[in-house]
Amino acid sequence: MYQEFFGQMKKQLGQIDKWIDLTEAHAKAKSFDANILLGMRLAPDQFALVRQVQIVCDTAKLGASRVTGKEAPAHPDTETTWEEVRARVRSVITYLDGFSAKDFEGTATRTVTQPRWEGKVMSANDFFVEHVVPNFYFHLAHVYAILRHNGVSVGKRDYLGTLSQRAP
Amino acid sequence: MYQEFFGQMKKQLGQIDKWIDLTEAHAKAKSFDANILLGMRLAPDQFALVRQVQIVCDTAKLGASRVTGKEAPAHPDTETTWEEVRARVRSVITYLDGFSAKDFEGTATRTVTQPRWEGKVMSANDFFVEHVVPNFYFHLAHVYAILRHNGVSVGKRDYLGTLSQRAP
Repeated sequence: MYQEFFGQMKKQLGQIDKWIDLTEAHAKAKSFDANILLGMRLAPDQFALVRQVQIVCDTAKLGASRVTGKEAPAHPDTETTWEEVRARVRSVITYLDGFSAKDFEGTATRTVTQPRWEGKVMSANDFFVEHVVPNFYFHLAHVYAILRHNGVSVGKRDYLGTLSQRAP
Repeated sequence: MYQEFFGQMKKQLGQIDKWIDLTEAHAKAKSFDANILLGMRLAPDQFALVRQVQIVCDTAKLGASRVTGKEAPAHPDTETTWEEVRARVRSVITYLDGFSAKDFEGTATRTVTQPRWEGKVMSANDFFVEHVVPNFYFHLAHVYAILRHNGVSVGKRDYLGTLSQRAP
């Protein structure tokens, strides 16, 4: 299950590359600096696009790190251009590429905590289902929604990517 | 895994009830008809809020139905008020309450298809990871984002709900 879900997260992170292509094409057609979109937000008290994509990256990266106990690379959240965003996303995909079934062998009995939980813990399974997956998709959908709201023609297929369909 | 993920979907559907409370309170404070928000959208070529929540419901309902082969109740997509939306959401929670571990026993070897797939199939596992979960959260996040964009003070905790935290 973990491998399938992290594999899916890698695939969805890969889709962001396509969204960036569409964003850059849109900005070029409209003659504005595509990086301006990184500061856009859907509400004044929500995170801007660049922060949404940073959280998507961190949720996948730290999710894999916490449910396995494997150290994660640090990212200082300094991106100001789409090229830097691309590099951030790719580095997380590379990190996730380093996981095998063996890494998740202890997950069923592992617990996870975070500083703001004031000493409380969650089972790694609960953390994954209740926190990692919902947060990953929440921020991923917000990246998509901010782009779409601002005229970038991302579509549902660009979100889902290619499905593993085959002849019966 | 299926039981945990569908359990999580039930929990997230339950959170929508809280979002509706906040929506009605916001509309009352601003003296407008809360049902107007059901027609709002983030882009002219995206679905309106009411359709987003219908798809959240259907993705969970049909997801469970397709990976188990158990028949799902029909919903004609006629909601025009928040009370009707509440009833729709609750009926899906009730449907999901009817599943037990036994229902998912055959899922690993089941295949799934849809009319628009032109005869192709997916394994039920792939369908769940690549289609059900990403779509469920995509539309759920859009419901949230449309409300937030329109001034309803839904927050991240209203999205995630209570986490299964405990003493170490």
